[in-house]
Amino acid sequence: MPQHGSKLRVAQVGLGLIGIETIKLAASKPWIEVVGGIDVDPAKAGRPLADIVGAAVGGAVYESFDDMVAAGVKPDVVLHTAGSKVDEAFDQIEPLLEAGVHVISSCEELLFPKLRSPVRSGEIDRLCRKHNAALVGTGVNPGFVMDLLPVCLTGVSRSVTRIDVTRIVNASTRRMALQKKIGSGMDPDDFRALFKAGKAGHAGFQESAALIGHCLGWAFDSIVETCEPVVAKKNIQTQFFSVDRGLCCGLHQVINAKVGGEVRLHMDLQMVLDAHDPHDRVVVHGEPPIDCRLAGGVAGDAATVAALVNAIPRLIKVGPGLHLMADLPVPAFA
Amino acid sequence: MPQHGSKLRVAQVGLGLIGIETIKLAASKPWIEVVGGIDVDPAKAGRPLADIVGAAVGGAVYESFDDMVAAGVKPDVVLHTAGSKVDEAFDQIEPLLEAGVHVISSCEELLFPKLRSPVRSGEIDRLCRKHNAALVGTGVNPGFVMDLLPVCLTGVSRSVTRIDVTRIVNASTRRMALQKKIGSGMDPDDFRALFKAGKAGHAGFQESAALIGHCLGWAFDSIVETCEPVVAKKNIQTQFFSVDRGLCCGLHQVINAKVGGEVRLHMDLQMVLDAHDPHDRVVVHGEPPIDCRLAGGVAGDAATVAALVNAIPRLIKVGPGLHLMADLPVPAFA
Repeated sequence: MPQHGSKLRVAQVGLGLIGIETIKLAASKPWIEVVGGIDVDPAKAGRPLADIVGAAVGGAVYESFDDMVAAGVKPDVVLHTAGSKVDEAFDQIEPLLEAGVHVISSCEELLFPKLRSPVRSGEIDRLCRKHNAALVGTGVNPGFVMDLLPVCLTGVSRSVTRIDVTRIVNASTRRMALQKKIGSGMDPDDFRALFKAGKAGHAGFQESAALIGHCLGWAFDSIVETCEPVVAKKNIQTQFFSVDRGLCCGLHQVINAKVGGEVRLHMDLQMVLDAHDPHDRVVVHGEPPIDCRLAGGVAGDAATVAALVNAIPRLIKVGPGLHLMADLPVPAFA
Repeated sequence: MPQHGSKLRVAQVGLGLIGIETIKLAASKPWIEVVGGIDVDPAKAGRPLADIVGAAVGGAVYESFDDMVAAGVKPDVVLHTAGSKVDEAFDQIEPLLEAGVHVISSCEELLFPKLRSPVRSGEIDRLCRKHNAALVGTGVNPGFVMDLLPVCLTGVSRSVTRIDVTRIVNASTRRMALQKKIGSGMDPDDFRALFKAGKAGHAGFQESAALIGHCLGWAFDSIVETCEPVVAKKNIQTQFFSVDRGLCCGLHQVINAKVGGEVRLHMDLQMVLDAHDPHDRVVVHGEPPIDCRLAGGVAGDAATVAALVNAIPRLIKVGPGLHLMADLPVPAFA
């Protein structure tokens, strides 16, 4: 928990469900002063942030960062929960960095932006260093369970021959957006097509693999990602979806990443309605062998919100630049 | 894995079993050049380091750092595996820091030196900053399983009400020094007396608790540590000890640390010959709940050696000063 003479001024960009929970958590910290929110939805702009989030937080909602600045509000840190792709996020993030505002983002590709956007990645880093800002992408997955935790466990490894990571999520316990993302109620072929078009499935999976490879010094020949629908064997009813037998009730996404023709990293993600035995597991093959299991798994939404807020003091400590989670000090409650 | 233009020059201080394994691992890294060893044992001094460690490593063994410097050898980093107490370690470490040499130590109290040696701790930090050196204390326990890993898991915590950490080690699989440390073959009352005198038991346990408290922002009212012998229910034979029924075959060391009268941190360490179901477990009570279990536990000696060597690039990155493991980037294989 950071000790500051004065509180950090924090604003939220993106006021969807995750954004609202994130800024509410931030507001509960004695070292944070919430100064406002930004959302492209014109219906939200101009209203007190407290109205939107349903809790006693300070500041108003603005349609853009320019509007926020014009109103005389200047945050130290922005929590950014809008968009999964670097290119989408860039337009929102650029003015923040130019104003020297630190950014912590749940944008999945920002976990390892060099993978898909090497040019933009360099641009973000230059902006950060020029304007004394720091940026990091994080969350629970990507950002922790399937990447940073495996990396952390290898801190006591003499040798690592291979890493296997599994995450089985019972999606029935998750928010509507996630149940939708995994294809709940869709025709399995439609889901396959949608995944191919990049419009369904878990985002940031290859970024997790790339982060592990980067940390372990593994130059992957290839990162091969597949995603298959899981088909309901019986009718399933959730708070948000009715899924008939034979339709899609989840996804099974797999990555195999090879070095010198051999699989060194295997990642297996199942997000399925009414999934049996949800858990996270990391197996580090090597010396010593490590077999780490998180019973029940780490609950996604609460953990993502926490990961964003907890990263604030560590990001500030590490100084200007585009950072990876592996560049920051060990994750910790803040 | 760090990329360097030239290799890091690494020396070993302390050539016991752990020290030998540590410098052998260091020598296997393409980014390290081993330049020598230091040991107070005059029988070792003057000999090639390769003779002592039984592997092809460079450099000779010196009785002191002064002797090493006089021979024209100047390491960038020293791996220090001699002594559990800050005061013992200080005399060895002081000349290293004055020469601007970075130090990574398995000295248990150096994990959180402010706890027992606040004055010396300040002195070490000043020496580091004055001479551009960095120092950190680490290992598997203390240094990872019962402190840093719990801290890391709270990185995705919205709230933490309490942490429970358990480590059950099958000491039959460990080195003689550890089997001795846990009282193997002793009269249980003799072991109790020895623990009270600070001459038996697991060192650094309170330091682990203090590190967790520091990271979580918990100002403990007290850290209460107890240690009871485990009494053999049958005769036990290890590679090093014969333990008759009724004698000591291990220890059960417990810490309860309270905030505002309530236990927030409970740590339970059992190191026992022929222990059943060895494992490590961290339970973070809070939101989300986290229940992490390492099947079989993390093997101690291999992991300590790895923790020391893997910390090198991260310690250098973080700059001059006395650092805690929680100040360094996320642990990672290097």
